[in-house]
Amino acid sequence: MAATVFILNGPNLNLLGERRPEIYGHETLGDIEARARERALALDLEIDFRQSNHEGALIDAVHDARGKAAAVIVNAGGLTHTSVALLDALDAFDGVVVEVHLSNIHRRAAFRRRSYVAQAAQGSICGFGGHGYVLALDAVHDLLERPSR
Amino acid sequence: MAATVFILNGPNLNLLGERRPEIYGHETLGDIEARARERALALDLEIDFRQSNHEGALIDAVHDARGKAAAVIVNAGGLTHTSVALLDALDAFDGVVVEVHLSNIHRRAAFRRRSYVAQAAQGSICGFGGHGYVLALDAVHDLLERPSR
Amino acid sequence: MAATVFILNGPNLNLLGERRPEIYGHETLGDIEARARERALALDLEIDFRQSNHEGALIDAVHDARGKAAAVIVNAGGLTHTSVALLDALDAFDGVVVEVHLSNIHRRAAFRRRSYVAQAAQGSICGFGGHGYVLALDAVHDLLERPSR
Amino acid sequence: MAATVFILNGPNLNLLGERRPEIYGHETLGDIEARARERALALDLEIDFRQSNHEGALIDAVHDARGKAAAVIVNAGGLTHTSVALLDALDAFDGVVVEVHLSNIHRRAAFRRRSYVAQAAQGSICGFGGHGYVLALDAVHDLLERPSR
Amino acid sequence: MAATVFILNGPNLNLLGERRPEIYGHETLGDIEARARERALALDLEIDFRQSNHEGALIDAVHDARGKAAAVIVNAGGLTHTSVALLDALDAFDGVVVEVHLSNIHRRAAFRRRSYVAQAAQGSICGFGGHGYVLALDAVHDLLERPSR
Amino acid sequence: MAATVFILNGPNLNLLGERRPEIYGHETLGDIEARARERALALDLEIDFRQSNHEGALIDAVHDARGKAAAVIVNAGGLTHTSVALLDALDAFDGVVVEVHLSNIHRRAAFRRRSYVAQAAQGSICGFGGHGYVLALDAVHDLLERPSR
Amino acid sequence: MAATVFILNGPNLNLLGERRPEIYGHETLGDIEARARERALALDLEIDFRQSNHEGALIDAVHDARGKAAAVIVNAGGLTHTSVALLDALDAFDGVVVEVHLSNIHRRAAFRRRSYVAQAAQGSICGFGGHGYVLALDAVHDLLERPSR
Amino acid sequence: MAATVFILNGPNLNLLGERRPEIYGHETLGDIEARARERALALDLEIDFRQSNHEGALIDAVHDARGKAAAVIVNAGGLTHTSVALLDALDAFDGVVVEVHLSNIHRRAAFRRRSYVAQAAQGSICGFGGHGYVLALDAVHDLLERPSR
Amino acid sequence: MAATVFILNGPNLNLLGERRPEIYGHETLGDIEARARERALALDLEIDFRQSNHEGALIDAVHDARGKAAAVIVNAGGLTHTSVALLDALDAFDGVVVEVHLSNIHRRAAFRRRSYVAQAAQGSICGFGGHGYVLALDAVHDLLERPSR
Amino acid sequence: MAATVFILNGPNLNLLGERRPEIYGHETLGDIEARARERALALDLEIDFRQSNHEGALIDAVHDARGKAAAVIVNAGGLTHTSVALLDALDAFDGVVVEVHLSNIHRRAAFRRRSYVAQAAQGSICGFGGHGYVLALDAVHDLLERPSR
Amino acid sequence: MAATVFILNGPNLNLLGERRPEIYGHETLGDIEARARERALALDLEIDFRQSNHEGALIDAVHDARGKAAAVIVNAGGLTHTSVALLDALDAFDGVVVEVHLSNIHRRAAFRRRSYVAQAAQGSICGFGGHGYVLALDAVHDLLERPSR
Amino acid sequence: MAATVFILNGPNLNLLGERRPEIYGHETLGDIEARARERALALDLEIDFRQSNHEGALIDAVHDARGKAAAVIVNAGGLTHTSVALLDALDAFDGVVVEVHLSNIHRRAAFRRRSYVAQAAQGSICGFGGHGYVLALDAVHDLLERPSR
Repeated sequence: MAATVFILNGPNLNLLGERRPEIYGHETLGDIEARARERALALDLEIDFRQSNHEGALIDAVHDARGKAAAVIVNAGGLTHTSVALLDALDAFDGVVVEVHLSNIHRRAAFRRRSYVAQAAQGSICGFGGHGYVLALDAVHDLLERPSR
Repeated sequence: MAATVFILNGPNLNLLGERRPEIYGHETLGDIEARARERALALDLEIDFRQSNHEGALIDAVHDARGKAAAVIVNAGGLTHTSVALLDALDAFDGVVVEVHLSNIHRRAAFRRRSYVAQAAQGSICGFGGHGYVLALDAVHDLLERPSR
Repeated sequence: MAATVFILNGPNLNLLGERRPEIYGHETLGDIEARARERALALDLEIDFRQSNHEGALIDAVHDARGKAAAVIVNAGGLTHTSVALLDALDAFDGVVVEVHLSNIHRRAAFRRRSYVAQAAQGSICGFGGHGYVLALDAVHDLLERPSR
Repeated sequence: MAATVFILNGPNLNLLGERRPEIYGHETLGDIEARARERALALDLEIDFRQSNHEGALIDAVHDARGKAAAVIVNAGGLTHTSVALLDALDAFDGVVVEVHLSNIHRRAAFRRRSYVAQAAQGSICGFGGHGYVLALDAVHDLLERPSR
Repeated sequence: MAATVFILNGPNLNLLGERRPEIYGHETLGDIEARARERALALDLEIDFRQSNHEGALIDAVHDARGKAAAVIVNAGGLTHTSVALLDALDAFDGVVVEVHLSNIHRRAAFRRRSYVAQAAQGSICGFGGHGYVLALDAVHDLLERPSR
Repeated sequence: MAATVFILNGPNLNLLGERRPEIYGHETLGDIEARARERALALDLEIDFRQSNHEGALIDAVHDARGKAAAVIVNAGGLTHTSVALLDALDAFDGVVVEVHLSNIHRRAAFRRRSYVAQAAQGSICGFGGHGYVLALDAVHDLLERPSR
Repeated sequence: MAATVFILNGPNLNLLGERRPEIYGHETLGDIEARARERALALDLEIDFRQSNHEGALIDAVHDARGKAAAVIVNAGGLTHTSVALLDALDAFDGVVVEVHLSNIHRRAAFRRRSYVAQAAQGSICGFGGHGYVLALDAVHDLLERPSR
Repeated sequence: MAATVFILNGPNLNLLGERRPEIYGHETLGDIEARARERALALDLEIDFRQSNHEGALIDAVHDARGKAAAVIVNAGGLTHTSVALLDALDAFDGVVVEVHLSNIHRRAAFRRRSYVAQAAQGSICGFGGHGYVLALDAVHDLLERPSR
Repeated sequence: MAATVFILNGPNLNLLGERRPEIYGHETLGDIEARARERALALDLEIDFRQSNHEGALIDAVHDARGKAAAVIVNAGGLTHTSVALLDALDAFDGVVVEVHLSNIHRRAAFRRRSYVAQAAQGSICGFGGHGYVLALDAVHDLLERPSR
Repeated sequence: MAATVFILNGPNLNLLGERRPEIYGHETLGDIEARARERALALDLEIDFRQSNHEGALIDAVHDARGKAAAVIVNAGGLTHTSVALLDALDAFDGVVVEVHLSNIHRRAAFRRRSYVAQAAQGSICGFGGHGYVLALDAVHDLLERPSR
Repeated sequence: MAATVFILNGPNLNLLGERRPEIYGHETLGDIEARARERALALDLEIDFRQSNHEGALIDAVHDARGKAAAVIVNAGGLTHTSVALLDALDAFDGVVVEVHLSNIHRRAAFRRRSYVAQAAQGSICGFGGHGYVLALDAVHDLLERPSR
Repeated sequence: MAATVFILNGPNLNLLGERRPEIYGHETLGDIEARARERALALDLEIDFRQSNHEGALIDAVHDARGKAAAVIVNAGGLTHTSVALLDALDAFDGVVVEVHLSNIHRRAAFRRRSYVAQAAQGSICGFGGHGYVLALDAVHDLLERPSR
């Protein structure tokens, strides 16, 4: 049976494609979901793709992933830098956690360089726009295949 | 047609007037809304006045303002100092953003002097109690009249 | 008439007992509630025991305690270290506030040593697992008995 | 009898309108004074409008305001961030003090975010260009009308 | 046989009740010892209650507790924030260590928020005045009953 | 014609597979090169794979990539955190730069969280062991295909 | 012939006695000058007593003291904490320099604890109000008597 | 009846005169005591002059001063910069506290610029060698004469 | 027609040659002016050479340079490290700005390493004594010749 | 005649061998003293070996070494990181001072990396357990033989 | 005989003229060398002009300068900010050391404002592009002529 | 068979004896090697003694020690404070690592107090000049004899 991967998107990611396309590109979150589903199919992974502007809803989603999903891919948006509660939720998830960011957060303002999410993630991918989700699925697939590393 | 202004109030502002009147005054949020409506009428501005204790609800409201409103006046309460996600939402709003605080935050504890909201605002008004909202409407009116500055 | 105490639990505390039992023990939040109710009975205190993963919901609960409760015992989980809005809500509550943590936060990572909740609390108890709630009730009882200290 | 308001302008504000008009606009300090006088007339306030590049002269002016003026509106320019002596002078003034800045100093270089002037001011208005002086007069008027807040 | 608990009090705690009663209350250290003895009796614990203004004497006392006591309750006063040597001594004690403070140190001056003692303690109780010692004994009792947590 | 990608490996990466296999896995740098070559073949990319313990040699290699390569994938090892000179070299390279790390540097000691290399990179991938190189090639391929983003 | 001592007073000290008498006392600068002259007479010292709100004027005065005075007693007010230029002027003065402050600056806000003036002073006296000037003269007298220490 | 003043000297001050006379001068602590006694006689003050290398002994001495002395003059030596416990003891003393240092601590290494003792002192005198004790007695005399300031 | 260069000297530079000749050399400011005039003649530049101990006077001078001078060479003395107002004035000058210091400020005390003046200067020359002014004129000449760089 | 070396041991070193033998080894302080005496004999040095948990007693011991000993070897335990008073005492000792630590303090918690003792020591040896004392004696011997270096 | 001057260029300076000409100009390192040789001829100085991307090679070159050269002019590129080893090498060179930078490093990112090289240099010249080398030779010439300053 | 010890010396140590003999003594690196060989012979240890100014060469040497040497003694000179890559190399070496410095780095400039090398070393010896190498060999010998500590 195919393993399930939760892909969780935090605040403001619903605006993708409309907001500052010269920076974030013209892809909408729907486009990204489509690309992710295509790759998931190829990798034989199930996807549960969600977005919320509410920290609590994201934490609930991580809890929901417990027992249902083998991995969580998370782009927490602005909560990346401020939410200890989200970190705690991810910490309590036993599967694989991969962090994704559209832009390279290491080159942005100082307060965007700190990531609480990273403290609970096996790995991190940033700066590749929507393609980062595809890479993250590939990474999850590799980690699930070789769990012993 | 009159331009619309969203006036967003963050956590705990619903308690205004009941909590520490010797500091915050006896005006309730309802009184402030009334004063704001009166001034808005005089300036030919429409008002959508909201309050929430939920960060996600405030972000949703800012998203809602996109396409509907020419300006957002925001008193984010305690979220002013902690919410990168709210900053991102305001950053994605193309109109005028004005920050308001009842007290002079520059004279309070150090953690209250940092404002994420300010990073997305044209201007900031603080220390004048409920009258700050009236001044903010006046500032919005001036900015909308003279967009080229 | 027995005084009422709100016991508020923040994000992820619903997972207690399932998550890392070797660290946090096998007690669930339900077990802790039971122990708290037992002690409350002995101390002639009423309990309103809640948990939420949503900051806004916790703030609403603190507002709800105004006029209803003589004390609030709060274990804000990850919000302890990040929520100025929760601090403001507790600040607006006129009764006794006691902070509880299951682990000794002074020995954990640096970002877990800062507590905004503590700024609004009479006292703080940490490191005693679920028994900390029992001690907190005892402390509340003592503070209500001797309000003049 | 109309109350008097000192409006004090610090170093380099005499260059307004000539320097970087794309940032600071085409208004000169004379234009701003004219706008301020117009609003003052409407609010029944007297204005004493001054500019100096000398810290000592500004301190002398604040001393001069003692006994003569009900309020001081101050845009201290670069001294905002460096002059403890000006803060002490404003601290010794018993009336209302309002801080104004043409640009939103919260979004500029770190050393421009610290304001000593703010330590002595009831409130602060920044980011609205010359219109900020008009708002400041309005704020002063409101504060003088409702001294009890 | 009843377990023994050392209760160690650091510098200036001998002045309790005489010094700033409006802050620290009217209880003397003798009153606190009496309350502690009463609770200890109920919990079937032996108490060795000491006070010293000498850091070395407190370290000697912790050494003395080795082999004699099952737990140490320590209110190190001003040494809490500066004594690495006392931390080392507590670190070398194999039993339970509980930290007590009369006031809520998290709300005091910054240099009082750092606790070296906390690095060696299972848990910490602060802000409840003399009642904190009673709570500490209760916590010790619980920890000795359930050593496996 | 196939685009060329330089894959540069910094100090100590020649020890891979021999050093702490429980942490870094059993893959040697040769194994990683083989995996990278396999994926490059599939993506129609040429690879120039190098390792050096000398900062100067790595800078020379980046200079060598100018005019020869369309992209540089760099795992600078310990130099990641200290070499401004390597940053300057990468900055002078006009093509795509992708940063790779075997482990999740965000979870390691503080001095390993600062990356100078990141200042010159489009994106960054870390925490996936040798598979990170495969993901980096995939990312390079995507960036070369869609240069306009 | 009696040695001459310059006593230089910085910004806002001309307001002494009028401003916050509950803190700074009812003594005016004239009263302090009178007390200083009385002690100087007893110690056979000449006094040149000046006050200015202008940093430049104070620097000119220190230059003027070169060749004329054996000692400078300086209460630089707010410039104490900000003027490197005044430090340089005092550094170029070959005689004795004594720093005086009316209040105990070590107990005030952090930015008032740094003293540039102190870098050029033999000694410092603070917290004794106007009597500090009398002590400073006594100290100058002692230093001039025993130059070899 | 003459008021009593405790003069307390901390660690290493017993070495005065022997240690680095080119810096600290040739005066021994005995010489300083003699000068202090002479001035005390003139001012009609009683002196209790002590030195100890033990922090605890100094704290005991401050406790001893309670009820016996009207003032404490304290040169705490190295404890000035580290002893919160001594600060607490001085804080519990109701009379006048004056801090003395032989050298100008503002010009020494950074860790010598922080003074905990200063937090409990009315005033501070430093940089005048043994004569500082004489000035301190004069300051105490003035403060006792004019307690209302 | 020869271009004009303002050479502005800040506080205490009038003392050059008299003060610490072993450090700053025996050249007076007059000697430096003479050397500068000689080189200016050779480079066909006009010089306006000024010194003031007043920050305001230096700002006035920079304003005066607007429209009159092609370049400003500035040695701001102690104001280099503290005057944001002088930085703003230089920022408003459209021509070339070159910073000069007699000593190598990078090797002096930490507070002398920060230069506000540098934020507005094309280049900086320090450590070469009076000869630095000659080099600065040469640099100005080169910059005026090659404005396009 | 053989030179005398004081070997001073600070707080908690009396517990050596009993406390955490897996870290500190099974050697007791007595064993170390025996090894030191054996090496001292071979090097023709006299040893005065002491331990105290009292800072004051260690300072007294350093004073006692003046005139009696040619060198002091000091392992100050936890006082290493906090005692300015002990630094001052060692500073006043004219002979050789060598610092010893059982563990490598550079790899421990941040607060253990600062050493006040080091400010007064010729050299430092850490990380070699009890053998460090033997190396320290060897170092003292070498320094006494070649005093001119 | 003409004195020899080593002109050492660090990492990436070999790319000059090719990289970002809009910032660094169109001059190549060869052009700069030609300009330097022309000026050296006029000043009767010999030049040894080198570039390396290897820190070790630059250190070797500084060692090579010992005994051969009277001065070293160094533009260490990115090593300026990171190489303590290069600082040590320059420190061991007895002649004149002058630091050059093409851009004004004081206006760039914070990590580019710290210069280890400056700690070993008489003076520093930055912001004048290739002309800075000409100024440096002039400065060296002046320093060699007037060694006594 | 005798164990082999690599003794690695970093940048500028080849200048020993020539550079600042009043500080570093007259011993050359050759003299130190001779002393080390003499002691090694007595301890039955083989020595491989190297020096390089190139970080990469030192890393290569540490790699070379793998499998060949039982211990590495390293004086990394200026790289001590900056090279994470050298730390990584030492970390990958399974044998004993001992750090040596000629001077007491704890008493030098702040940037010389941080040691990356120390993070990988069992112990550290500094401040004893060339004799430190002899002590290091002695320490290595002791550690190899008693590996279990």
